[in-house]
Amino acid sequence: MMLLWFCFRSLTFRIGCCSFVSTYPVSSDFSAENAETRQVLCSLESRWTQTCAQVRFGVPLFVWIQPDLCKFLIRLHQGKPRDFLPWGKPAGAPPEGPQGVPRPEKIKILSSSKMMDLLTPRIFLTFPLPDVCLTGSMSAVKLEECRQHIRAQLDSVVDFWLKYSHDTVHGGFFTCIGKDGNIYDELKYVWLQGRQVWMYCRLYRTVDRFRKPEILKAAKAGGAFLRKFARVSSSSGQWKCAFCLTRDGKAVKVQRSIFSECFYVMAMDELSRVTEDQDMQLEAEQMMEQLIHWVRVDGSGLGRPQLPGDVPTNSMAVPMMLLCLVQQLSEDRRGVEQKYAELGSWCVQQILQHVQRDGAAILENVSADGSELPGCLGRLQNPGHALEAGWFLLQYAAERGDEQIQTTAIQKFVELPYESGWDKAHGGLFYFLDVDGHCPTQLEWSMKLWWPHSEALIALLMAYSQSRKAELLQSFFQVYEYTFSHFPDPAGGEWFGYLTQEGKVALDFKGGPFKGFFHVPRCLYMCERILDDLLASKE
Amino acid sequence: MMLLWFCFRSLTFRIGCCSFVSTYPVSSDFSAENAETRQVLCSLESRWTQTCAQVRFGVPLFVWIQPDLCKFLIRLHQGKPRDFLPWGKPAGAPPEGPQGVPRPEKIKILSSSKMMDLLTPRIFLTFPLPDVCLTGSMSAVKLEECRQHIRAQLDSVVDFWLKYSHDTVHGGFFTCIGKDGNIYDELKYVWLQGRQVWMYCRLYRTVDRFRKPEILKAAKAGGAFLRKFARVSSSSGQWKCAFCLTRDGKAVKVQRSIFSECFYVMAMDELSRVTEDQDMQLEAEQMMEQLIHWVRVDGSGLGRPQLPGDVPTNSMAVPMMLLCLVQQLSEDRRGVEQKYAELGSWCVQQILQHVQRDGAAILENVSADGSELPGCLGRLQNPGHALEAGWFLLQYAAERGDEQIQTTAIQKFVELPYESGWDKAHGGLFYFLDVDGHCPTQLEWSMKLWWPHSEALIALLMAYSQSRKAELLQSFFQVYEYTFSHFPDPAGGEWFGYLTQEGKVALDFKGGPFKGFFHVPRCLYMCERILDDLLASKE
Repeated sequence: MMLLWFCFRSLTFRIGCCSFVSTYPVSSDFSAENAETRQVLCSLESRWTQTCAQVRFGVPLFVWIQPDLCKFLIRLHQGKPRDFLPWGKPAGAPPEGPQGVPRPEKIKILSSSKMMDLLTPRIFLTFPLPDVCLTGSMSAVKLEECRQHIRAQLDSVVDFWLKYSHDTVHGGFFTCIGKDGNIYDELKYVWLQGRQVWMYCRLYRTVDRFRKPEILKAAKAGGAFLRKFARVSSSSGQWKCAFCLTRDGKAVKVQRSIFSECFYVMAMDELSRVTEDQDMQLEAEQMMEQLIHWVRVDGSGLGRPQLPGDVPTNSMAVPMMLLCLVQQLSEDRRGVEQKYAELGSWCVQQILQHVQRDGAAILENVSADGSELPGCLGRLQNPGHALEAGWFLLQYAAERGDEQIQTTAIQKFVELPYESGWDKAHGGLFYFLDVDGHCPTQLEWSMKLWWPHSEALIALLMAYSQSRKAELLQSFFQVYEYTFSHFPDPAGGEWFGYLTQEGKVALDFKGGPFKGFFHVPRCLYMCERILDDLLASKE
Repeated sequence: MMLLWFCFRSLTFRIGCCSFVSTYPVSSDFSAENAETRQVLCSLESRWTQTCAQVRFGVPLFVWIQPDLCKFLIRLHQGKPRDFLPWGKPAGAPPEGPQGVPRPEKIKILSSSKMMDLLTPRIFLTFPLPDVCLTGSMSAVKLEECRQHIRAQLDSVVDFWLKYSHDTVHGGFFTCIGKDGNIYDELKYVWLQGRQVWMYCRLYRTVDRFRKPEILKAAKAGGAFLRKFARVSSSSGQWKCAFCLTRDGKAVKVQRSIFSECFYVMAMDELSRVTEDQDMQLEAEQMMEQLIHWVRVDGSGLGRPQLPGDVPTNSMAVPMMLLCLVQQLSEDRRGVEQKYAELGSWCVQQILQHVQRDGAAILENVSADGSELPGCLGRLQNPGHALEAGWFLLQYAAERGDEQIQTTAIQKFVELPYESGWDKAHGGLFYFLDVDGHCPTQLEWSMKLWWPHSEALIALLMAYSQSRKAELLQSFFQVYEYTFSHFPDPAGGEWFGYLTQEGKVALDFKGGPFKGFFHVPRCLYMCERILDDLLASKE
């Protein structure tokens, strides 16, 4: 019989296979350890135990665990959990805490595949996150730790892109950046050029510590590259933006969709706010008119042939993206706000059409009149997209004080996709799902991508800040824990982008054709701002 | 101390985590068991041991194993292999066998993650495949078992598609078919319509047991659907085929590539051979002229804008596909053969341009003049494609008695991609690789797909049949073992198409936008024919 002491310094009570992670800034030494243990799991001999000991099988065994806020005792018999004894009351819990000690939801004992480890199996405890800890003074402490961690992450991610992504010869940004910062392809993807200009400008304009000349200089150079090379005239005489350029700016590929142009608008508008260049703002609005024409009047200029079986479809991405642009162009500009007010309202209605199945599901594609489409296309769910739309709607609702949209946004675009999109077996958000449970045809459907997690963090925290529903903060912490224990690469910097369903790194680059300086810093930036507001309101 | 008897009735000596599989037809009962054990691995209590016993740790232990051809003894001490003792001479080995008993390459002991299994760990033995067993009378026995198994698989796969894929209302074939035969989407993908018509006709025309009215009827109905609906006129006035049609034949999507048209040609030509419809043959040749124009004269009719950064690229798929069509159209037709002789030779030269890095690698994309392209595009490797090109080249070489092409095909397009594409850690062929070891940007790069394995089986067996190099048959058996222990679904029929790197089923449907009645039956059909020839020559 032996006693084992754990002392978790973590914010979260959920101690799963990936959760031996402190949620406030940790030493690089720990981070490296964590990166390694991500796959081998943590053992009782981990540095996270105060007292180390081996577990013997075949004898009754006691495990006594003391996280920050609670103590309890688990008795194991012949390697299986036999009983669970609360051990006093959570040490730091607020006095009104109703439930005393949280009981583990799951106790799992694993042994590794290595022969030598057979005698030292690992024990994993999954605890429910007690609501009581999410209110009152404790939550302020936790949120402050969270803010510090997110600030440090944002600083580190900005440094990564400042260091590795600038093409000082031809201008613009390298976007294919390997694990350790190496450029593995010189192609320049226009979505990512536009997004990086936008993100640099937004940070420069709104966050004091990023108001640095080198950031402004890089944003301007990126903007100049875009203006010079991104636009290619299409056969219809309309301006299309390329999807991809060579290092020196020659167009390689043009997509038959609107998104390169959307990120062009975002870049130009935000850059015009920093530089006060009104031509640039005008250019952004001109491109916006082109986009509106394609979406609402005539899309033939995009270059897709008109086909009888290709029925008009309302794809979530389109109204979402346009709503984002309306918010971008309208910010602090009365005249522009009025100009795009009807469009904004139309976008919201188009987004709301994706609530289907009597409110039980968000579907990624619906018909033009808002009914469900047949087949895989109609049944497709993209939880990350729904969550991203969720926080766009929340921003829209907050600007107008529209409680109805706020409620719908929280219930249908935050809680619902989070619930349905979360992988109960392995954690993390699925990339795609089929609402009827068929297997999606996208080969990557079960992978865990960085961006749905980034969007989920913003959406859940924003929804909590608007509603103060404790469950939303619980969910935020669940995503937070998964995200920060899986995606960041403390060794090489930045985040990995693509994990297997089980959470193993599947693609190890930091930048690629669709991953640039955007979702990660935008998430960290937005979360930091929301946490600033939350903490200011608690003071 | 205890003795454990194994009796493997398997063709192969490689006994990995997935190799407790008989390679000749097995009972459905075993198959179900196998599907289950694919992930839980096989244990010593498996039905494949003649005597079952548990392994105890901490005591010396003997394991005595008797596959078909050899006996040997492994002594374990405290759970680790201590020594290995040959135990006589392979029972059925030819007298000239030089090496006596094969020594395991690897002895691995695993325990499962379940507590209850800790006392009964599993032992995996990996044996080298002795060359001696691949010649003489034993190999004839093994190849015969192999042929029987492949025949049974082909029959079963044909039955699956006859049962589930026919649309008796609108004609054509459903291609989105779920795990158990359910239609989960009614869209009709044109590549797959064409391929299914071709495969049905080829089976009907060349394999006696498939000369059935229902197969001919289905092929004709598929051909009629294709002729009626697949062609859509493009803006340039040239005939393009759609990529995807609604159930009733309305075009949904047109790709800016040549492949729908290629499979249209394959279907029409093979159907014309069965029906002796000369109009249809003419139509196939007319579409072929269109294809040649696009590829060799002017590709603008495909609808891709001409962009300054989009340099002309020789993608493996294009000359491969055209060579396949040349072989299809020319078969047993002297005049047509002459007509396309120059094109065939050009295709071969275009394919050979993909041998790069001084012969050390096959690259999927090269420049129009046969040099390496920069970036990810240039470094991309697609082992399955290279292997498929390999057997196209082998066929071409055999028709002409061209030993030089044969040698290049075997060394560069069979052995090389097999070596570089095989996943040494988990088995199976990678989908994509980067020749310099960077991470490919394709999200699915590390997945194991059915079709590269199908192509590898044909390529390796054909290469063996032409060269009689024992190593090629060894490699064939390695792929054979991986393929048949991972892809077929004995419960629901047909094969799964998409596995994770570790070999777990990632997408469980049997038919999808790119998986139809083609690679699996073509592989089984080709292998059966080659085995027929090999075995006939041995008699």
